[in-house]
Amino acid sequence: MNQVKEIYLDNSATTCVDDKVKKAMDKYFSKEFGNPGSFNTIGLRAKDAVDSARKKIAEILNADFKEIIFTGSGTESINLAIQGVGKARKEKGKHIITTKTEHHAVSETLYYLAKDEGYEITYLDVDQYGKVTVKQVEDAIREDTILVTIMYANNEIGTINPISEIGAMLKEKHKTVYFHTDACQAAGSLDLDVKKLNVDLLSINGSKIYGPKGTGVLYVRKGVQIKPIIYGGGQEFGLRSGTENVPGIIGIAKALEIAQEIKEKENARLIILRDKLINGIIEKIPKSFLNGHPTERLPNNVNMTILDVEGEAVMLAMNEDGLCFSSGSACTSSTLDPSHVILAIGLPYEAAHGSLRFSLGKNTTEQDVDYILEKLPPVVEKLRQWSPVKLDMKDVLEGRI
Amino acid sequence: MNQVKEIYLDNSATTCVDDKVKKAMDKYFSKEFGNPGSFNTIGLRAKDAVDSARKKIAEILNADFKEIIFTGSGTESINLAIQGVGKARKEKGKHIITTKTEHHAVSETLYYLAKDEGYEITYLDVDQYGKVTVKQVEDAIREDTILVTIMYANNEIGTINPISEIGAMLKEKHKTVYFHTDACQAAGSLDLDVKKLNVDLLSINGSKIYGPKGTGVLYVRKGVQIKPIIYGGGQEFGLRSGTENVPGIIGIAKALEIAQEIKEKENARLIILRDKLINGIIEKIPKSFLNGHPTERLPNNVNMTILDVEGEAVMLAMNEDGLCFSSGSACTSSTLDPSHVILAIGLPYEAAHGSLRFSLGKNTTEQDVDYILEKLPPVVEKLRQWSPVKLDMKDVLEGRI
Repeated sequence: MNQVKEIYLDNSATTCVDDKVKKAMDKYFSKEFGNPGSFNTIGLRAKDAVDSARKKIAEILNADFKEIIFTGSGTESINLAIQGVGKARKEKGKHIITTKTEHHAVSETLYYLAKDEGYEITYLDVDQYGKVTVKQVEDAIREDTILVTIMYANNEIGTINPISEIGAMLKEKHKTVYFHTDACQAAGSLDLDVKKLNVDLLSINGSKIYGPKGTGVLYVRKGVQIKPIIYGGGQEFGLRSGTENVPGIIGIAKALEIAQEIKEKENARLIILRDKLINGIIEKIPKSFLNGHPTERLPNNVNMTILDVEGEAVMLAMNEDGLCFSSGSACTSSTLDPSHVILAIGLPYEAAHGSLRFSLGKNTTEQDVDYILEKLPPVVEKLRQWSPVKLDMKDVLEGRI
Repeated sequence: MNQVKEIYLDNSATTCVDDKVKKAMDKYFSKEFGNPGSFNTIGLRAKDAVDSARKKIAEILNADFKEIIFTGSGTESINLAIQGVGKARKEKGKHIITTKTEHHAVSETLYYLAKDEGYEITYLDVDQYGKVTVKQVEDAIREDTILVTIMYANNEIGTINPISEIGAMLKEKHKTVYFHTDACQAAGSLDLDVKKLNVDLLSINGSKIYGPKGTGVLYVRKGVQIKPIIYGGGQEFGLRSGTENVPGIIGIAKALEIAQEIKEKENARLIILRDKLINGIIEKIPKSFLNGHPTERLPNNVNMTILDVEGEAVMLAMNEDGLCFSSGSACTSSTLDPSHVILAIGLPYEAAHGSLRFSLGKNTTEQDVDYILEKLPPVVEKLRQWSPVKLDMKDVLEGRI
C-alpha cells in the first residue's frame, strides 16, 4: 500500500518536540535522575538543573527567579492562576472578568467557581475579529473585582488582544485588580516581557512551543496573593507540590529559549505562508472568508469559514490526502458542537460548522501551502453538491458586526 | 581529580527511568507527537497509544478502562482523590480519617481542607512499627465520615498497612465511606489488585517505579462521587483536564508492566540485601536499631536510628564517599525538622534526628551493601566523638511502646 505523506497543520493543538529540546532533556531520564528535594549530590545536581531552567525562563520573561512556577500543563497553570487567586482573595471579593472566547481551561475553571463556589463572572463580548477593548474591561470593573483574565492570543482564530494596554489601565486605575493572561498560544511567537505586558500572572504550555507535553509555567508576580491547588511537599515555593519533573522542566526552558531566538525570522516566514494560504483559499473557493483579525493575529494561524460545508467532513476528506488539521478547537473536537469562539464573533450556527483551522509550524513549507490550495477546492466543491444548506455570504458577514 | 563512584540508595525519593521505559517513550516526543484530542490521523494514533497504556494499567490493577485516570504526579493523584471526594461529598459529611504517618501529599491536603474548608480530620495513632489496625479505623468512623485515606506502605520506614483488611471492613460495615490508599511507595513491589485491596481510590507515582517524573495514576472505582481539581478540555473522562502527556503515559504504563513482571524475583533479591544491611548496621554500630516493622515492610527499605549523631551529618559525610541516601523524607529534607513519622512511632525528639533511610533499588548490589557496612561505622564513631548528646538506648526503645 502506498503511504500518503502526512502534512501536519495542527500546531496550535500541539507541536512536536524540537530535536534540540529532546537532546537537552535526554540525560535527565536515566543518568541525572535525582530528586531535587534530596539532599545528596545526585539530588543537588537535579536541583541545579531545575534552578538553571528557572533562571533562563525568568530572564526571557523579564521576571525574578522566584516568580517562575513549574506546573504539569498549560491548563494547570491557568487553573492555579484563577483558582489560586480566587481562593486567596475571596474575602476581598468574588467577581472575575473574562471574555467569551477563552480556552476551556479558563472558561471551565470560571464555570466551576461560579457554580460551586459562588463567584460572579463577567464575560465580555468580543468584536467581529474576536478582540476586547481596554474600555470594555474598565467598564466592567466593580468594587469586588479581584481578577481579570484575558487570553493573549486566541487558540482558534489567532486574534491578539491588547494585553499590554489593558494591563496599563489596570495598573493605573485599579491597582488591586490582578491581571492574568493565558499566553499558551502566544508564547511561541509574541513578546513575553511581563513588565511590558503589565500582567501579574501569565500561563505558558510547553507542548505548544515544541517543548514536552505535561509541562507548563506560571509567572506569578512577587506579592500576588495566591494559594496552591495541589498540596504536599511544598515544591515550587509552596505553590505546586510534587516531585519536580526535571526532564520536562529542562525541556520547556530549552523550548522557550529556542522560540525567543528564532522568533523574528520565523514569524516573518510564517506570515508569508499564512497570508498566501488565506488569500489562496479566498481566491479559489467562493463563499469563504477569514475568521479573526487580518493583521493582529498569530503568525501561524489560518482560520477560515467555508460556507455550505461541514468542517468535520472537509477535515476527514483531506485527512485521506495526508493533511492533518482541525475543525474548531482540538481540545473539544470530540464534540460536534460549533465553536464558542466562532459563535462569539457573530457567525450564525450553520456557518460556525464550516470553520477550519490550519495552524502552521516550523516544518511547514510553501509546498505544503500549495498542496492545500490544490486539494481543498475540489473537496469543497464535491461536499457542496451534497449539502442541503445554501447560506448567503452577505447575510453571514453582516451578522458578524 | 579522582571521581568517586556514586552509589544511589535513595530509590524511595525517586528512581532512574528504566532503559526499556525510556525506549518505549522515545518515539512519542518528536515522531508520534499528536494531541489525542485532535480528530486527525496523527492525533488518533496518539489517542490509540494512550488507550493502550490505560488498558494495560487497568489489567494490572484488575480494574476497568474508565477507572484509570492519568495525572501529573503521585501528589496530584492524591490531591485529586482527597479534594475531589471532599468536594463531591460535602453535603453528606466533612469528616475524613487518616493516620499520623502519611506523606505530606496527604497530610497537607487534609490540613488545607480542615483550615480553609471546614473539614474535620481524625489522625489515627500508629503502633511502634508505624501500623494502624482495622479496629482503630472502625472506631473512628462517624455518621459524617466520607473518606478514609491510609497509605499502603510508608515512604520513610517502609511499614505496610493492612489495606485489604481495612477495606474489607469498610465494604462490609460502612459501604458509604470511601477508601483511598496512597500506593506511591508500594506500586513497585506490592500487589495492586484493587479488588483484593478493597479500595475505591488508589494513587500511583511513575517516578517511584522507574517511570518518568511528572506522571501519576489515580484509580477511581466506577460510581465513586468525585470532582476534578483541574478544569478545562475535559480530558481523562472529565476528571483531569489538560493535553495528555503521551510519552509520560506510555512511560508509566511500561514501568508498571515491568514492575509486575519482575516483582517476585526482585523482591526476593532485595529482601536478602535489605536484611543484610539492617543486621550489619545493628551488629557493627552500637546504639542503632531498625525503624518500622521487621517483616511487614517494603523489600527495599532500610530505616535505621543511630543514637547520638545527626542523620544529616552522617549523610553529608558519607556523600563524600559517593553514597547517596536520605535522612528523613526526601520531600522535606530541605527542612531540619525531625520526621513526623519517626516521632509518630514514639521516638523522642533527640533520637528522631538520627534516622537514616537507605532505599535500595534495581541497581543495588551486595557489594554496595558491603561498602555501606565498611564506611558507615567509622563515620558514626567519628561524629559521636563530637556529639554532646548521650541517649540511653533502653529509654528510647521503651518510649516507642
